Amino acid sequence: MNGYEVWGWGDASDAPTRAALEQLAPFVTATTGVATQSPEEPRATPDPAPPRRVLPASLEHLGSADPADRTRHGIGRAYRDLIRGIRAELPDLPDTVVRPTSEQDVVDVLDWATTTGTAVIPFGGGSSVVGGVEPRGLDNSLSLDLSRLEGLIEVDQTSRAVRLRAGTFGPAAEAALKPHGLTLRFYPQSFERSTVGGWIATRAAGHFSTRLTHIDDLVESVRAVTPIGAWESRRLPGSGAGPSPDRMLLGSEGTLGIVTEAWLRAQPRPTHRWAATLAGTWSQGASAVRALVQSGLQPAACRLLDPVEASLSGTLSSGQAALVLGLESLGPPLDGEITQALEVCRGAGLTVLEQGLRGQAGDAWRSTFVRAPYLRETLVLLGVLVETFETAVTWDRFDELVGSVTTVVTEALQQVCGGGSVGCRLTHVYPDGAAPYFTVIAPARRGSEIAQWDEIKAAASDALAAACGTITHHHAVGRDHRPWYDRQRPDAFATALSATKSALDPSGILNPGVLLG
Amino acid sequence: MNGYEVWGWGDASDAPTRAALEQLAPFVTATTGVATQSPEEPRATPDPAPPRRVLPASLEHLGSADPADRTRHGIGRAYRDLIRGIRAELPDLPDTVVRPTSEQDVVDVLDWATTTGTAVIPFGGGSSVVGGVEPRGLDNSLSLDLSRLEGLIEVDQTSRAVRLRAGTFGPAAEAALKPHGLTLRFYPQSFERSTVGGWIATRAAGHFSTRLTHIDDLVESVRAVTPIGAWESRRLPGSGAGPSPDRMLLGSEGTLGIVTEAWLRAQPRPTHRWAATLAGTWSQGASAVRALVQSGLQPAACRLLDPVEASLSGTLSSGQAALVLGLESLGPPLDGEITQALEVCRGAGLTVLEQGLRGQAGDAWRSTFVRAPYLRETLVLLGVLVETFETAVTWDRFDELVGSVTTVVTEALQQVCGGGSVGCRLTHVYPDGAAPYFTVIAPARRGSEIAQWDEIKAAASDALAAACGTITHHHAVGRDHRPWYDRQRPDAFATALSATKSALDPSGILNPGVLLG
Repeated sequence: MNGYEVWGWGDASDAPTRAALEQLAPFVTATTGVATQSPEEPRATPDPAPPRRVLPASLEHLGSADPADRTRHGIGRAYRDLIRGIRAELPDLPDTVVRPTSEQDVVDVLDWATTTGTAVIPFGGGSSVVGGVEPRGLDNSLSLDLSRLEGLIEVDQTSRAVRLRAGTFGPAAEAALKPHGLTLRFYPQSFERSTVGGWIATRAAGHFSTRLTHIDDLVESVRAVTPIGAWESRRLPGSGAGPSPDRMLLGSEGTLGIVTEAWLRAQPRPTHRWAATLAGTWSQGASAVRALVQSGLQPAACRLLDPVEASLSGTLSSGQAALVLGLESLGPPLDGEITQALEVCRGAGLTVLEQGLRGQAGDAWRSTFVRAPYLRETLVLLGVLVETFETAVTWDRFDELVGSVTTVVTEALQQVCGGGSVGCRLTHVYPDGAAPYFTVIAPARRGSEIAQWDEIKAAASDALAAACGTITHHHAVGRDHRPWYDRQRPDAFATALSATKSALDPSGILNPGVLLG
Repeated sequence: MNGYEVWGWGDASDAPTRAALEQLAPFVTATTGVATQSPEEPRATPDPAPPRRVLPASLEHLGSADPADRTRHGIGRAYRDLIRGIRAELPDLPDTVVRPTSEQDVVDVLDWATTTGTAVIPFGGGSSVVGGVEPRGLDNSLSLDLSRLEGLIEVDQTSRAVRLRAGTFGPAAEAALKPHGLTLRFYPQSFERSTVGGWIATRAAGHFSTRLTHIDDLVESVRAVTPIGAWESRRLPGSGAGPSPDRMLLGSEGTLGIVTEAWLRAQPRPTHRWAATLAGTWSQGASAVRALVQSGLQPAACRLLDPVEASLSGTLSSGQAALVLGLESLGPPLDGEITQALEVCRGAGLTVLEQGLRGQAGDAWRSTFVRAPYLRETLVLLGVLVETFETAVTWDRFDELVGSVTTVVTEALQQVCGGGSVGCRLTHVYPDGAAPYFTVIAPARRGSEIAQWDEIKAAASDALAAACGTITHHHAVGRDHRPWYDRQRPDAFATALSATKSALDPSGILNPGVLLG
């Protein structure tokens, strides 16, 4: 079995070769300041133990007990997943992978799973970085791979909305919409490896810094299958009829039902684009960003990078923070907004390095953005610990959060790895706060990586909680964020969610351990 | 007892006099085409039956069994409420009105109510038009009036967010924010008579046609008291940690907990404003509106009025439909957007009647808007049946919905009232749909008004449901919309909501009959 197909981001042809890794090593050290190790030879993945529970004859045609299939479906794409994948150390695997081809198949699988007490873990693209698809500690489980429930079902040009099956991947969705002159303009970093259903289940966010960047705001209606029956909301542009049913499924992470399809709002393409790169201190940059969004601008890109991130990303190597700003318009020229944006930024003390109207530069940046996961696996194979975590916080606590988290994680890196660096950038910005995103790069101690990371992650998460940030802005909760999620959510809401879960999934088969249970 | 204080929108001094009514009558007939009747003399409200259940000594200081107080708290502000108020026919009244002065008071009241099985109906400004505050068919109930839990608690200038107690009325909130240079810019038609807590509980919408017009989007966190304990979400600008706790309280209409305070996002004031009035057919107007919002414009005002509404509102008396368009900017001049908006509107066939940059014209319009409820009670006293209902629907079904609802209601008016008119306007618009708002004006048959309206309302609601609209876009569900709400919400979601209710409110004391139970 080729290990890469289990843990890699890409197809078999994307697997890094030893020669490529050796060639990259000096560049990695120069860029990150972390000494690389000799390229690790991934272990071939051994055949897992035979499944403990097999599908009944009526469902057999949907299932696969293929060892590679089962192994692939047992992990996501966090650092801990890469390490375990590369080492072929995957104790918890689903007994079987089930690929429904119709909603009735989903119903049948849930019925059988309810009867037999088999855990059902929904699987879209398997790109979870929070342990969302891993049957951790579960005796009997199946991975419900929705990739065959895919494709565009219906286009409503009048309302500019599209009906997509849950298993549709980002590129396939865009390809299907293109002939209709439509696009979702929804680009999470996992775009290539994530699905419509996964976006909804995890409340995913795209790469735009403001406006329509949360999948929550693109959802017009959702259809799901729960163990007690179907759940389909009416297609509505807005409604005030009781609490929103869609908002209850959004973020439910497969614990309440299986999303099978959704109507999503398509987006228009901008006709004018402008981009600028500015430099200054982090503090000047943060002031500028806050002033920008509070002055009513809604920049498509508003990425503040601290000196570490600015250098790592090749944006700026002067040791300053960088602000990458992008404005878009669907119609009117951007002149007024550009003037306002530059005035605000200069007022905050930033220097304009470059700026100009542009055509497709944003697409180039997006392309680099979605390639980042490939780079990460390269670093990991070279013995570099590399992982990210993210949050959101109101502006009044912003400085304190970024400061305390950076300090705590830097200290943890020193203790755990003997060094390393923490970079911070803003991925999303709001009038009342921002979403800081941290990247950690450090020398890994081979064989101890997971313990190392667990310690750092716990320190980081405690620091986030102490500074009143959310445990996740768009990576979801999964199994890894549970302790902090449990502390964060209102107690009465936890009770409500638990009651909801019991009512919809009385046997507790849906993604146990995630959010609840 | 002065009846007006029970059913009137304003203070005692706003009560219409007989002379004023007589003076207005010819004008009403000329404007509405409906013959008025002699001004009705409202009945003095008789003392209600003594309360069936009294508060314990420990809570007595918070309670009022004053007949006027009890009567006022037994009705909202729908047409049926006005009629019943004017006739002093209010069979269902709360036993007592309780005004907590602290959150602990709320806890104590809920504890006592849980123990004794007393229904608790939260009451903000009592402006519900859907039977939300009426103890319909309840044996024992108390009205939990939150008006003493009011005021601004905290201002976070950095994040531009404010913490307000739930009982704060619109004008009081604005007055408190003004010295801080802040505003909520949240203006539902009930602005004068509704509260922060009521807005959240009912998912209220302000008068802006697009963007930050739903209270949902202004809410940063909510604190509530449930019978099993407190519920407080963390203040966050955005979060992907599980389903949103706030979105579960938003629209819960007092059935899950009592909102006691919230952090709301304050808004900046625009520096540039532009307004235009355009004329054409309804169909041209609808095409223009759809093209405007789909072209990325987010007009502050985008009110399409059909000929009936255009005439009634005094906007246009030519028999054409009118589009009242308003653009705002916080910084950059509006030139580009104005050009685009006019181009789109002319492209759809509309004629520009007037347009121009303006100062405070929007405030004048808003002032008229919030005065409408006063006008309504005048009409009712002159024997005119006048009521509104509203919905939202995707653009693909928009024409069909407006057409079928108008036809059905016109026929119902003919049958029930022997005539009358139905007007339609758009209150809120979206790229994927719009929110049509219907006004019905007809000659009432005195003594039969409620039966008349119930028949018309049922026909209208059936037609809305058949055309796939929501039973309410921003008026809430209350007791009046229950049958259609029950049909609209996903079955599995109804189960979830019911389980949530049972977990948070095991004795079912919170606003029974609303949404559930």
